[in-house]
Amino acid sequence: MTAAFPALRGVGEDTATARQILDRCRALVRPALAQAVERLHPWPAEMAAYSFGWCEVGGTPTEVTGGKGVRQALAVLCAEAAGAPGEAAVAGAVAVELVHTFSLLHDDIMDGDPTRRARPTVWKAYGTGPAVLVGDALFALAVETLATVPGARGPLAVRHLAAALGDLVRGQADDLLFASRPWTGPEAVRPDEYRSMAEHKTGALLGCAAALGAALAGAPDDTVAALDRAGRHMGVAFQVVDDLLGIWGDPGVTGKPVHGDLRQRKKTLPVLAALNASGPATESLATLLGLPDTPDDATARRAAELIEQAGGRAAALEEAHRHIAAVEACLDSVSPAPRPAEELRTLLAFLVRRDM
Amino acid sequence: MTAAFPALRGVGEDTATARQILDRCRALVRPALAQAVERLHPWPAEMAAYSFGWCEVGGTPTEVTGGKGVRQALAVLCAEAAGAPGEAAVAGAVAVELVHTFSLLHDDIMDGDPTRRARPTVWKAYGTGPAVLVGDALFALAVETLATVPGARGPLAVRHLAAALGDLVRGQADDLLFASRPWTGPEAVRPDEYRSMAEHKTGALLGCAAALGAALAGAPDDTVAALDRAGRHMGVAFQVVDDLLGIWGDPGVTGKPVHGDLRQRKKTLPVLAALNASGPATESLATLLGLPDTPDDATARRAAELIEQAGGRAAALEEAHRHIAAVEACLDSVSPAPRPAEELRTLLAFLVRRDM
Repeated sequence: MTAAFPALRGVGEDTATARQILDRCRALVRPALAQAVERLHPWPAEMAAYSFGWCEVGGTPTEVTGGKGVRQALAVLCAEAAGAPGEAAVAGAVAVELVHTFSLLHDDIMDGDPTRRARPTVWKAYGTGPAVLVGDALFALAVETLATVPGARGPLAVRHLAAALGDLVRGQADDLLFASRPWTGPEAVRPDEYRSMAEHKTGALLGCAAALGAALAGAPDDTVAALDRAGRHMGVAFQVVDDLLGIWGDPGVTGKPVHGDLRQRKKTLPVLAALNASGPATESLATLLGLPDTPDDATARRAAELIEQAGGRAAALEEAHRHIAAVEACLDSVSPAPRPAEELRTLLAFLVRRDM
Repeated sequence: MTAAFPALRGVGEDTATARQILDRCRALVRPALAQAVERLHPWPAEMAAYSFGWCEVGGTPTEVTGGKGVRQALAVLCAEAAGAPGEAAVAGAVAVELVHTFSLLHDDIMDGDPTRRARPTVWKAYGTGPAVLVGDALFALAVETLATVPGARGPLAVRHLAAALGDLVRGQADDLLFASRPWTGPEAVRPDEYRSMAEHKTGALLGCAAALGAALAGAPDDTVAALDRAGRHMGVAFQVVDDLLGIWGDPGVTGKPVHGDLRQRKKTLPVLAALNASGPATESLATLLGLPDTPDDATARRAAELIEQAGGRAAALEEAHRHIAAVEACLDSVSPAPRPAEELRTLLAFLVRRDM
């Protein structure tokens, strides 16, 4: 499937390089992030440390790897792209990582997901009430982190964060509602609704991370806005690739079950695009998805074939390409410093080709 | 029990006056609050309207009375006390009402409370996941409301809100943990821990409301700080009176069951103060509370008697008085405009003598 991303050929082929970039940014942000978490009440602080992968339930330190830290890296690299040292972005990087973790915590409650990164989710490990609480604590801490940045850049950063928070909730509301909407008919989810959901749910915080990095570095408003758009496109591209992997990804690489998203009846872009087409494959797919039973292996495999025949896979790939091209155009438009520009491209390639 | 509040005699005796003040402030703030809620995604917007008492499940408008609106009134009156028109406080009033509703929504999930103001709580009516979501939406909206206030007052307001949000979560964490701590021994909850919890959980947002009103009115920093302290003391006084009503309140007036807090084994100040004393009543109370069974009517009545004999009721009353006196001292220290000062005193009297 790598060949399906020709636009990325020769760009950041080396996953090891991407991991080095992520590691460098994580090392830069980690002390401030840890200090912020330590300011919490000890109980939510432990739950927060657990969800960052820093400790086990009970507080024993662990070597478990947390998330990739894409958002903090984006903030740091965008400050550097604007000509400032990465340190300028640290408060922004801390805030976006706090918000990201808050949203994972609360989303896991809403979606009833029992595991994340091969460990019990916080609500499973500590209970629903405590998981609601620690999410709130991280949310408040993120706002406080930016509200106390001195000078005019603090208020600017808070405005960016507030806008992203609103979008995040909007996207999650749509995503939750999609589950109860039909596959076909006037109430069906349209691909453009999906796009809007993905931009809000995934794009807004990546855009915010990029914008915060640039804003805290003192970049001009149009640079901040362009990097915000770059991050948003990156988020949608990431989400679409995630959808493709959820159907056709190699379980040995992704760690997810074959056709997992189809068996869970998730309304992802390849399916919605296939249903939005016309022809016999679309009709057969609609009939198959209309069956009341949870799809078994054979049904899921057949659905994947029909989605591909109806053009859903190609449409999603094309969508991902479009957003990747938009990211590159946004980056080019701000004439970023060369090294961070290269690293941002490496990160993008890693994000949209990860595990493929 | 009215006679137990001699410091308040002759001050704002008229509950009707307090209700008029609350109504005036509600009318001033309501349009902006409604506009803010309308900016939400329609689904959380309906749940928010339900929790404000504006509609039933499904969206049908209702005449149900929501909360008293004490926080918005405090913001408006403190702006007026600082010499500005109440309109100056509106963004702050909206923000504190949004945060208050967010915290009720999430607290009801954490505490498993099925009803609030004689209606199903949001998690009961709409589900836990949606209730988590709408809480987050209100939280984000509160931050956005203040982040977009123009000029230097917006950032100042955001800093006040961020600090209160942190305190709120801290207080809720302590309150949840109190439930699993023992009545006696080294791990028992001490009265000073209770005071700190009440200041964080209830006082911080009332203090924030008062501070926001003054800050948005352009009051000097020391006035803002004094009104913040006034609000915090008001919150603790309110909480302690709530505790007294939870044990000795008239169920016909409070709408709560006789000895309700005792039967629910809540760690309230009268009990903690009684256990912190010494003597035979304290010892008998400790023995009674140490029994494993849920207290029946007779046991709860006996516990209430022992708490009174051990001085817990008097200690709590004395604590409430101390905070009421502190509120008045803080108010006096800022030389407020006469009419709002009188109205703030009426509101205070209403709050600490409500339903008695």
